[in-house]
Amino acid sequence: MTDGRLSALRDLMARKGWDAVLVSGSDPHASEYVAPRWKQVEWLSGFTGEGCAVVTADHAGIWTDTRYFILAGQQLPGTGFELHKTRVPEQVLVPQWLAAKFKDDSPVIAVDGLCTDVTTVSDILKACKDARIANVPDLLDEIRDDRPPIPSSPIMTLGEEQTGWSRTMKIGWLRRWLAERGLGAMLVSALDEIAWMLNVRGSDISYNPVVMSYLLVTAEEVSWYVTKGDGRLDDETQDSFYELRADGVKICPYADIEIALSDIADDENTGKLFIDPSSLNYSLYYILKNSRLGAGMQEDGNGARGIIPGKSPIALRKAVKNELEIRGMREAHLEDGLAMEEFLYWLEKSLGEWDEESRARRNIYDSMMYEDTEAVPLTEARAAAKLHELRSRIPGFRGESFETISAYGPGAALPHYVTPEEDSPELKPRGLYLVDSGGQYLFGTTDITRTVPLGPCEPLECEDYTLVLRGHIQLAMAIFPQGTAGCQIDALAREPLWKSKRSFGHGTGHGVGCYLNVHEGPQDIRQNFNRQPLLPGMITSDEPGIYREGKWGVRHENLLLCKNAGKNDFGQWLEFEPLTLCHFDTSILVTSLMEKDEIEWLNAYNARVYDELSPRLPKEIAEWLKEKTRPV
Amino acid sequence: MTDGRLSALRDLMARKGWDAVLVSGSDPHASEYVAPRWKQVEWLSGFTGEGCAVVTADHAGIWTDTRYFILAGQQLPGTGFELHKTRVPEQVLVPQWLAAKFKDDSPVIAVDGLCTDVTTVSDILKACKDARIANVPDLLDEIRDDRPPIPSSPIMTLGEEQTGWSRTMKIGWLRRWLAERGLGAMLVSALDEIAWMLNVRGSDISYNPVVMSYLLVTAEEVSWYVTKGDGRLDDETQDSFYELRADGVKICPYADIEIALSDIADDENTGKLFIDPSSLNYSLYYILKNSRLGAGMQEDGNGARGIIPGKSPIALRKAVKNELEIRGMREAHLEDGLAMEEFLYWLEKSLGEWDEESRARRNIYDSMMYEDTEAVPLTEARAAAKLHELRSRIPGFRGESFETISAYGPGAALPHYVTPEEDSPELKPRGLYLVDSGGQYLFGTTDITRTVPLGPCEPLECEDYTLVLRGHIQLAMAIFPQGTAGCQIDALAREPLWKSKRSFGHGTGHGVGCYLNVHEGPQDIRQNFNRQPLLPGMITSDEPGIYREGKWGVRHENLLLCKNAGKNDFGQWLEFEPLTLCHFDTSILVTSLMEKDEIEWLNAYNARVYDELSPRLPKEIAEWLKEKTRPV
Repeated sequence: MTDGRLSALRDLMARKGWDAVLVSGSDPHASEYVAPRWKQVEWLSGFTGEGCAVVTADHAGIWTDTRYFILAGQQLPGTGFELHKTRVPEQVLVPQWLAAKFKDDSPVIAVDGLCTDVTTVSDILKACKDARIANVPDLLDEIRDDRPPIPSSPIMTLGEEQTGWSRTMKIGWLRRWLAERGLGAMLVSALDEIAWMLNVRGSDISYNPVVMSYLLVTAEEVSWYVTKGDGRLDDETQDSFYELRADGVKICPYADIEIALSDIADDENTGKLFIDPSSLNYSLYYILKNSRLGAGMQEDGNGARGIIPGKSPIALRKAVKNELEIRGMREAHLEDGLAMEEFLYWLEKSLGEWDEESRARRNIYDSMMYEDTEAVPLTEARAAAKLHELRSRIPGFRGESFETISAYGPGAALPHYVTPEEDSPELKPRGLYLVDSGGQYLFGTTDITRTVPLGPCEPLECEDYTLVLRGHIQLAMAIFPQGTAGCQIDALAREPLWKSKRSFGHGTGHGVGCYLNVHEGPQDIRQNFNRQPLLPGMITSDEPGIYREGKWGVRHENLLLCKNAGKNDFGQWLEFEPLTLCHFDTSILVTSLMEKDEIEWLNAYNARVYDELSPRLPKEIAEWLKEKTRPV
Repeated sequence: MTDGRLSALRDLMARKGWDAVLVSGSDPHASEYVAPRWKQVEWLSGFTGEGCAVVTADHAGIWTDTRYFILAGQQLPGTGFELHKTRVPEQVLVPQWLAAKFKDDSPVIAVDGLCTDVTTVSDILKACKDARIANVPDLLDEIRDDRPPIPSSPIMTLGEEQTGWSRTMKIGWLRRWLAERGLGAMLVSALDEIAWMLNVRGSDISYNPVVMSYLLVTAEEVSWYVTKGDGRLDDETQDSFYELRADGVKICPYADIEIALSDIADDENTGKLFIDPSSLNYSLYYILKNSRLGAGMQEDGNGARGIIPGKSPIALRKAVKNELEIRGMREAHLEDGLAMEEFLYWLEKSLGEWDEESRARRNIYDSMMYEDTEAVPLTEARAAAKLHELRSRIPGFRGESFETISAYGPGAALPHYVTPEEDSPELKPRGLYLVDSGGQYLFGTTDITRTVPLGPCEPLECEDYTLVLRGHIQLAMAIFPQGTAGCQIDALAREPLWKSKRSFGHGTGHGVGCYLNVHEGPQDIRQNFNRQPLLPGMITSDEPGIYREGKWGVRHENLLLCKNAGKNDFGQWLEFEPLTLCHFDTSILVTSLMEKDEIEWLNAYNARVYDELSPRLPKEIAEWLKEKTRPV
């Protein structure tokens, strides 16, 4: 499918005199998930995981982390691309690899300046001091003509009753923040920060309810540079635009950001312009560098007279949820938990009725409950579709918060497995099934993983299941002093696994937005030296796992709300409260491996799930849940 | 005692036009412990903890960390100095404080360039962009005339049978390391690195067996710039010098380093000169900056054509002990453990014979055992002296590895308590006594803390005792993947304390040298984002604590050797082995608070202590130890 693309790129490189090309896999806003137009690593190499590609005359590599090693092992052979592992001790990152590759040369490294952020380029130039960067917007367009357009989905606005803070409050806060630091203006380039600032949502990117746009805030003006298109300005959306204009937001064409930025950075009256190099693309950096304010700007964004680089304050402000957002997140988790329990009930009953000897037999329970009359085998894809159907009945449901991982057996051994639509593996009444999914609701975002036995499990499966749950519980039970960063408590989730010499190669927890991106910073819980302390109001996932290639995978995930836990002689204390409401299966638990306080936590959590969900569940499911949440 | 010194300094500042003076508290080699000549913070302020002082026209401050808050609270009132807390979330470090203080000014900040390292100055200039540094070697000499001289204690050399690696092997290794990186020479300025490189030891600094010196290694020459003095070149030492010369080490006067460095940095044939800015003092930096190779060097050491700043490779190489060093460390811990057990036995028996009603009564046991005929009360100082006496009987004993903390009750609440010689508090047969001490032996270095009940304890004391031991054991039991840094497992030692909302304000573990500094890098186990992975062969302390001001303190400390723990599908695993051999008292343990595996670890450890020590202990102490190590 990608045949010929690599050689076409190399032909282009030879014509242009480029020694290396970096394809970033991101979009002009350094987004994690991107619209189809920017899935350029996939277009070039066929690799569908997250990562970037570097191509030279004699080497083509994909740099990706532990989550995608197995996927890369499946997708890369025969493509001409080799896997470069990251987040492993022996990692050689792109800048260092390029530096070693072109040790005594002064290579020309071409990047798609629109899709490569300033920090990435700066890291390369720090390592390869003699390299020259060729800034080529839409670089791959020279060898492709099938590229999808810039998305422009309908836009909606959210009211203060949903967001807690109105957009005028948020703009006022940002202006104060800038003024306190002697700054005159800020370019906001991260899409979730813009959505949060303006209380707008869209669906320009799958799963992330954001709007392709830039936001320019000065002491006098707020200008929103946003794509327009069919349906983007329909009747409903018109209202949104009126509302934004009424709040003083000037709506401008997306493409005009380049001229506007050039104008503002040439205007001595602007004062100092604040930018975040981690989400600013290199093409816009180039415009700034050639402006009056940007004179003297170095590759890392520092050194300019009138442009100040730094960490956007919006990310942290957004991560600390206010009371209304927390209320919305609680509601989302209650609704989502009801759908999850209905799903797990359906799964168990369907499997009970379905066995290998009678594949053709009608799935009696399913047809009875949901008037599905067609008899089809129970596959990973069908389970995912059922879960989608249950979630989509919830008022305010806006779609999944990421692609559902519905994985049985070996599939679950891939932390970021993609459930195939066609020839989807069939679920059998034995072993473990893993479902990692989440919903976007008008009032919140969810992200939950449950691993459940579909029948008898091997002793090692039961052990893995238990140890991962112990890790999950240890982190969920943590009490820690104010000022503690996620990487300083990450080991709590890993220790029960480590003791048995098992581990997992991904982070333990990521921040989660409120009806926004399911992955957000600045906090996380992983082995990464991120200094951001966990703060009351932050919501972070807790998702340890164990993966055995070709066999099975276990992951248990709740979202945790960080809360104050009182003060004493030793200082201020923090703790977590699980937001997720869905029982953990206890049937294959090896309780002899568990600590007493872990079992107590588990029983209390399952009891809380039953208490909160059962009044709103159909009677037979409530009864089933009562059995499932019986104390161990 | 320090009266008038602060105002004399301010008079000097006014005359010189200095807006601020930084007194670093370190020596020309960025040593942690310093000879009396460089205890300048103490001379100026009376504060005896570790920290630095900053004086301006209207403010005088001491910056120190959590370990010394209580001490500072006792020593600073009335001195004119205020406490600035570091290692707390709200800390404002010196550079940021100076930046805020002189916000719109261009201050002149004077430093004693000999005693201030390049990194410290560079951090100040990064924060205070408009500041100017006045480089004033021996700055305080202008207002003092009683300054102790540069030390020059006798020097000894160690053979290959003690160090595992001969000095010619080490020099060969360093030269290869330099050559592989295209470097021509290295200035070694950290004293423990020089002692390790040359296999020399001295006693220029209390507790740290190092020699005041610099080492300059080029492809052709090894030049050692070392102080000379009475007794430094006696007969015995002559041999050492001959031995060094025979291995090609050129011995030069200490003060000649300035000329030598100037010469070498002006010589185009030198090639690139490697320096470590974290131990290079600012005065030497100044010489380098004004040399041919140093042209263009910035304040952080970067930017010069021919001088390359970086982390010295010696620290890491030294931290990973070889087999002979590990054997020596084991021997040191066996001998040290015997002394510790004799001490604890003596303590218990002495207290049994000693009560408040009969202060004048002879201490029967003591006089019987050790022919101490004088009856004196049992004080903190006397206990420390007894422990010293027991250690000093060990062949190869060279002195303590740091000042013994012998602390009863409230004294133990100060993590870095200094046991007073006069009016030393008396030990009573109730509550907790803490002793943190270590020995320097020709074959190794020890560092051990035991907290023991001298009689009945309050329930909260017993709880604190138990929780700290749980923290100690959790870290000691840890199994973790290769590549893990200390800060990534630090929480394991804290979690049992955190669960009860208790904590401690110091690091959990520091690296320990082999007959070298009791504190060494590059690894540690603390909440500090130090990326250095723990490696097999590294020796690190494990010393959690709980401190209750005015009441008591608990700390339990062993040294742990990091070892390989096998490989499996999940990767390479590491674990710890305790080197320290001395039982943990179980009499006040609240076992109901402990996990099963913690109790198993404790019983196994105490059994091992008995097995290894009892054959070499006097019969009555061996029998006593058998009781003490009975399983719980």
